[in-house]
Amino acid sequence: MADPWQECTDYAVALARQAGEVVREALKNEMNVMIKSSPADLVTATDQKVEKMLISFIKEKYPSHSFIGEESVAAGEKCVLTDNPTWIIDPIDGTTNFVHRFPFVAVSIGFVVNKKMEFGVVYSCVEDKMYTARKGRGAFCNGQKLQVSQQEDITKSLLVTELGSLRTPETVRIILSNMEKLLCIPIHGIRGVGTAAVNMCLVASGAADAYYEMGIHCWDMAGAGIIVTEAGGVLMDATGGPFDLMSRRIIAAGSKTLAERIAKEIQIVPFQRDDDN
Amino acid sequence: MADPWQECTDYAVALARQAGEVVREALKNEMNVMIKSSPADLVTATDQKVEKMLISFIKEKYPSHSFIGEESVAAGEKCVLTDNPTWIIDPIDGTTNFVHRFPFVAVSIGFVVNKKMEFGVVYSCVEDKMYTARKGRGAFCNGQKLQVSQQEDITKSLLVTELGSLRTPETVRIILSNMEKLLCIPIHGIRGVGTAAVNMCLVASGAADAYYEMGIHCWDMAGAGIIVTEAGGVLMDATGGPFDLMSRRIIAAGSKTLAERIAKEIQIVPFQRDDDN
Repeated sequence: MADPWQECTDYAVALARQAGEVVREALKNEMNVMIKSSPADLVTATDQKVEKMLISFIKEKYPSHSFIGEESVAAGEKCVLTDNPTWIIDPIDGTTNFVHRFPFVAVSIGFVVNKKMEFGVVYSCVEDKMYTARKGRGAFCNGQKLQVSQQEDITKSLLVTELGSLRTPETVRIILSNMEKLLCIPIHGIRGVGTAAVNMCLVASGAADAYYEMGIHCWDMAGAGIIVTEAGGVLMDATGGPFDLMSRRIIAAGSKTLAERIAKEIQIVPFQRDDDN
Repeated sequence: MADPWQECTDYAVALARQAGEVVREALKNEMNVMIKSSPADLVTATDQKVEKMLISFIKEKYPSHSFIGEESVAAGEKCVLTDNPTWIIDPIDGTTNFVHRFPFVAVSIGFVVNKKMEFGVVYSCVEDKMYTARKGRGAFCNGQKLQVSQQEDITKSLLVTELGSLRTPETVRIILSNMEKLLCIPIHGIRGVGTAAVNMCLVASGAADAYYEMGIHCWDMAGAGIIVTEAGGVLMDATGGPFDLMSRRIIAAGSKTLAERIAKEIQIVPFQRDDDN
């Protein structure tokens, strides 16, 4: 039987590459930076332009499909996941990086049907790395098959996470106290390149053993989530429960044992769900 | 008048490239990881092999010069900076990254005469980025001139730092409390790719506005230090005093104002000086 979503996958890859080209061009020019939810939560005209471009191209080809896009939601569109085929888009994952020209900036496209991830595309456009995964067919970076580390021993692990864009004292305190607990186990280290999608792709590649974060959104996870699982990794809620795309929380790890151990160590930061409108 | 150290600079670039080739090859094979000062301070046979290779090639050509190398010092050689022309070498900056194949690993070579930095070479060998600087002649990455951001406003800044390899509760507490103070100013964010040399080169490139760290060594700073200053940046001790290569502390920033502001915010972690044998 032919793959019902192969054409969509190919289209997503072509569009991500085209969007990445726009992002790379924009990096050469002056930017007008605007503030969203906090002084550390930034947006630019390029985020909005790239999202409009992606959604209009996809709508043209698949008019019956649904969309969730970071900038559309910021502009007031509702963020609800139905059983309809849904494209979940982050035009620039790592906008703060983009603003600073810190070289990790990704176009992320996830595709979900009946609330299950079918394929994901993450194009890290400064590095020119195209990460892709189709359900049941493995994960790839520039055509090369990806495989997680399978590390189970937390004391030998390298983790990736971010400090987030929220700057309320209580949130910052929990985020840093989680890092403190993990560091003192001890673990090998913690890194963060400034984009959830690229951090997750580093887990898929085996370069990091796990990624965890709270406060991110479905568009930060939908593209890279299936790249992690198709590379042999595990997704889990930060509470240790089943992964929930709309929960704003994730642990993506090279093994279930490691994911569970991280869940045991970290304290939850409360965030409103993405679909709690 | 001919540049007295141009030949050494060219030689350092050629050797760094050759060393990077050995490092890249080693990434393809199994590794035997050993522990140095803490369970998070790692070393491999490749660190030792690359350092031996670099020092033997340089000694052959410049027998009167002095050397400070990370692995030679670990093996008991003394770490004292004299007025003699001195090559300061880190064969693999980012050994933990190397062990995990996290893709930021640098060969770092600094050259100091009369205790002043004359040139620096940092080869980020997975990215294939060759950063170089010669005193008075600017800093370059793969031939392209580098320029710091010149950012003076800390609330618009993106910083780079690391959590370090020491895991004593008091050290971890100060490191995280420094991050907390900076985050809550607020600043745009904090990143860390896992190598001091590459972090500093990101400051030289303008992609990050400043780097600070305590507990690193002269071989982590000697190559990239002059790359920062030749790109228009500033080096300062983390106390706010003049930069001291042997002090184990650094702020490297795109402007003096930003460096001074960071120095005002951070609490000092005490470390024994590199030359305190």
